[in-house]
Amino acid sequence: MSDGRFTLYGDRRSGNCLKIVYTADLLGLDYRFVDVDIMTGESRTPEFLAVNPAGQVPAVDFGGGRTLAQSNAVLVCLAEGTSLLPADVFDRAKVLEWLFWEQYSHEPYVAVCRFQMVYEGKPAEEREGWRVTKAEAALDHMERQLAGKPFLVGTRLTIADISLLAYTRLAGEGGFDLAGRPKLGAWIARCESELGIAGAG
Amino acid sequence: MSDGRFTLYGDRRSGNCLKIVYTADLLGLDYRFVDVDIMTGESRTPEFLAVNPAGQVPAVDFGGGRTLAQSNAVLVCLAEGTSLLPADVFDRAKVLEWLFWEQYSHEPYVAVCRFQMVYEGKPAEEREGWRVTKAEAALDHMERQLAGKPFLVGTRLTIADISLLAYTRLAGEGGFDLAGRPKLGAWIARCESELGIAGAG
Repeated sequence: MSDGRFTLYGDRRSGNCLKIVYTADLLGLDYRFVDVDIMTGESRTPEFLAVNPAGQVPAVDFGGGRTLAQSNAVLVCLAEGTSLLPADVFDRAKVLEWLFWEQYSHEPYVAVCRFQMVYEGKPAEEREGWRVTKAEAALDHMERQLAGKPFLVGTRLTIADISLLAYTRLAGEGGFDLAGRPKLGAWIARCESELGIAGAG
Repeated sequence: MSDGRFTLYGDRRSGNCLKIVYTADLLGLDYRFVDVDIMTGESRTPEFLAVNPAGQVPAVDFGGGRTLAQSNAVLVCLAEGTSLLPADVFDRAKVLEWLFWEQYSHEPYVAVCRFQMVYEGKPAEEREGWRVTKAEAALDHMERQLAGKPFLVGTRLTIADISLLAYTRLAGEGGFDLAGRPKLGAWIARCESELGIAGAG
C-alpha cells in the first residue's frame, strides 16, 4: 500500500492535508500533490467525488480503484509497519485514541476557528464563543497530557503527534495564544525538529 | 488485549457505548459494565478522570494501568485478529475511513440531535436547523454508499458497520425518518440480524 506511488488531493493550507504531507515526506514516500480549492467548489466536481464521494479533502488515490479519505485513516495506512505506528497492541490503541480525539474534540474547534480567520477572513472577535471555549479546553487537555512526556504515546514520534501537530502548530492563526502552555510549546518544537519543518506560522 | 476481562464504563443509552457492547457480545468477550451517568457529573469525578482524563464515556480499563477511551479506538482494539477487522491492508484502511467519518460527519449531527431529544427532553422542532441538515446529509451519504453492497466494507460485517449502526438504528429517536432510505433500512436489519439484537428503538 504505502510503498507505491500515490496521488494526494488536497489544499496546502489545510492541516488535515499537511499531516499527510508531513508523514509522507518523513517516510520518503513518492507521491504527487494535486491542489483542490475547496473555496471554489473543486471538492464538489464529479471528478473529485469519484475519488471521495464525501466531497472532502484530503483524499488519496493509490491506483487500481483504491481511493481513501479521512486524513487520520490515511496516516494509519501510510505509517503501518514503520516506527510512526507502534507494533504493540496497546500502544497502537492509544495512537488511535488520540487520532479519534483529534477529529472529535480538537479539529472542529481549533481548526474551524482558524478556517474562519484564514479562509473566510473573519477577525478573531467573530469566532463563536462556544467554539473558542472548546478549543481552549482541547489545548489545555494536551498541555496536561504532555506533562513529563516527550510525545503523546510512548517515547518516540508517532502519527498521533503528527496528527495533533498539524493544527496545534497553526493555532495562532485561529486566534489562540499558546504562550501559557509551555509543555505544548516544547512538544511543538520537538515535533517540528523531528519532521524538519520550519517554526509555526 | 482483547482476550482478557475488562471493565467498560458507559451509559446504556449512548450509541458510542452500545457499539462496544455489540462488539464485545458478538465476540463473546468477558467484561463488566459500570454505569456512568453523564447527566449528573459522574464522568467528571476524580475517579472517572483517572480512567479517562478527557472526561468522556465510553472508557475501558483493561487492568494494569491500561485504560482506553474513544469508542472507535476501543472497537479496533477488541476486533483485532477477528473477521470484524479485515486483515487486508486496504480493507482495514477503508474500515478506518468509515470510523473517522462516523465521528466527524455523522455522530456530531445524528447523535447530538438524538441527545437533545432523549437526554435533554427537547421536541424535534428545537433541534438546530444546520445540525439537522448535516444529519440528513450523512444519512443520505450512507444510503448512496450502500447501493449494491451488503455491508460498508467488503462482503462481511465489520466494525465499520457496528460503529455506524449504533446511532443510525436510533436515528428515529433524534427525529429522523429513514423510510425514504430503503438501502439504509435493509442494512440496519441485516446488521441487527448478525448481531442478534432487537429492532430499532
